Amino acid sequence: MADLKSTFLNVYSVLKSELLHDPAFEFSDDSREWVERMLDYNVPGGKLNRGLSVIDSYRLLKEGQDLSEEEIFLASALGWCIEWLQAYFLVLDDIMDNSHTRRGQPCWFRIPKVGMIAVNDGILLRNHISRILKKHFRGKPYYVDLLDLFNEVEFQTASGQMIDLITTLEREKDLSKYTLSVHRRIVQYKTAYYSFYLPVGCALLMAGENLDNHTDVKNILVEMGTYFQVQDDYLDCFGDPKTIGKIGTDIEDFKCSWLVVKALELCNQEQKKVLHEHYGKPNPENVAKVKALYKELNLQEVFADYESKSYEKLVSSIEAHPSKPVQAVLKSFLAKIYKRQK
Amino acid sequence: MADLKSTFLNVYSVLKSELLHDPAFEFSDDSREWVERMLDYNVPGGKLNRGLSVIDSYRLLKEGQDLSEEEIFLASALGWCIEWLQAYFLVLDDIMDNSHTRRGQPCWFRIPKVGMIAVNDGILLRNHISRILKKHFRGKPYYVDLLDLFNEVEFQTASGQMIDLITTLEREKDLSKYTLSVHRRIVQYKTAYYSFYLPVGCALLMAGENLDNHTDVKNILVEMGTYFQVQDDYLDCFGDPKTIGKIGTDIEDFKCSWLVVKALELCNQEQKKVLHEHYGKPNPENVAKVKALYKELNLQEVFADYESKSYEKLVSSIEAHPSKPVQAVLKSFLAKIYKRQK
Repeated sequence: MADLKSTFLNVYSVLKSELLHDPAFEFSDDSREWVERMLDYNVPGGKLNRGLSVIDSYRLLKEGQDLSEEEIFLASALGWCIEWLQAYFLVLDDIMDNSHTRRGQPCWFRIPKVGMIAVNDGILLRNHISRILKKHFRGKPYYVDLLDLFNEVEFQTASGQMIDLITTLEREKDLSKYTLSVHRRIVQYKTAYYSFYLPVGCALLMAGENLDNHTDVKNILVEMGTYFQVQDDYLDCFGDPKTIGKIGTDIEDFKCSWLVVKALELCNQEQKKVLHEHYGKPNPENVAKVKALYKELNLQEVFADYESKSYEKLVSSIEAHPSKPVQAVLKSFLAKIYKRQK
Repeated sequence: MADLKSTFLNVYSVLKSELLHDPAFEFSDDSREWVERMLDYNVPGGKLNRGLSVIDSYRLLKEGQDLSEEEIFLASALGWCIEWLQAYFLVLDDIMDNSHTRRGQPCWFRIPKVGMIAVNDGILLRNHISRILKKHFRGKPYYVDLLDLFNEVEFQTASGQMIDLITTLEREKDLSKYTLSVHRRIVQYKTAYYSFYLPVGCALLMAGENLDNHTDVKNILVEMGTYFQVQDDYLDCFGDPKTIGKIGTDIEDFKCSWLVVKALELCNQEQKKVLHEHYGKPNPENVAKVKALYKELNLQEVFADYESKSYEKLVSSIEAHPSKPVQAVLKSFLAKIYKRQK
């Protein structure tokens, strides 16, 4: 596993070096340095789960056959395209959310010399994906499907981000807009497609599959991505800050979290008043009131129930799938997230 | 011509309506309204020259054959993709430049409810291009080449924007960085590819051509785009504000304009001091000093000379081209810009 990760990181260096010498643009020393710094700052510093899962998935689809060096390189390159996509979203999201830190360092746009140039850097990150795909996949029979896949998933993610932004910001803190269906749409589009479906979609294409035959796989992965985000919402409030590595602020930030949506669904008129009064305010007393209400409503149990039902549903959908290797891919994803504490 | 424009605008309505009912995303009423308002605000309000030139160029390539309704629709759709690309760049550029107005109205991000959501709206605009191309061109033999063309041109534009940003902002007003070669690179990448090469590239693909056989056409159009931008720089200072519709501020804004680059090239030590002292300052006295120097250096004549030499060079490159229809396309572009006053 440590070995896989170091192979994966080597591919990053290769891709970066190719991008810094892309013949479609005449770099000056300044611009080459700028891009290199921007990439190193924003691309490789995450957990790399999405990227690595392309290689894992492809290996499982090939049912234990030894992968050639070329196959490992290509699967890694696709994995890095997803990491690049993630970096692009994060750089721009941080600007839109006016965030301060990301992955334990200041957000890219907070670097004094960068500022709003970060918007263009985000664009460049997106464009690098097209450059990587063109360089390494232009001759493959699935090249056009890869382009369509990345385009469609990017469109869905940006659309999810749009509903998140207009629900959370524009509506001037109107809790009545927060419903399970709004929550589901935000999560599905903003997170599930690119984090869960995209890696498997890439692996399936590399394995020669037609994605039109795999809408069931897509649906299962989108379900799993939704479950993953509900866990995230839960851990933001009930997780151990030491374990998850940050202190959650969804309540203060008026986030459309699964917890507040469930609370709204389960509360009586009196409790609803408490939520409306205290949700989305920065003071610890307000936050404490909301947390107390969550406990009163037994949300920990409600979540445990949701978690086991989701798990069962996912397992039975997976087992209904006709292909064993595809089942293996889906089970590997599920095993990584079931009952996670971070 | 009025007729062509109204046909073109009809296609906008069709494309918009398709995007607002895209099955890849579940719109709510709120999000559909948001996107519609955003599109109407940002996409159709320009001069539409880039978009219309796809239809013109395609018609010339077909040597006066009557175009079918489908051909007109498809050429218009590609034209609109370029207008969408332009809208995407402008929405984001205005954020990066902290601009106030665009096309006679406040910049999109200045609308109070919008703010930084404009970053995501820019992303959506880019994504709409992929959606339009997929819906209308997925079955065409040149579909993958269209995707590659838009991707490559977008990459070049973003790279041009990067050198513009890091030359103009980061370098803390160091005029010595402004050379003809820096100017040429900014203009070529940031403007020429998408404004001049892209429309013709689209028309060539629709006409069944392989773009690899047309690097000479690309080079001529990039030359023409460079000449166009030099005119722009010239008119910013020497044009009639009533005719060009705005008051130029390149001197105040420390822009890497062709004029300042030429001035730096032609001036003696004393004059260079004047430039260093007065360029990029907001006061009218500073601006007047710079303009006086431009006149002292006879930049109006230098420009007239540049203009006629560029024109001659372009004409002879065009006439050296083996294909008459391609010559007609290039001449039509050149005729539209030669000695323009706005």
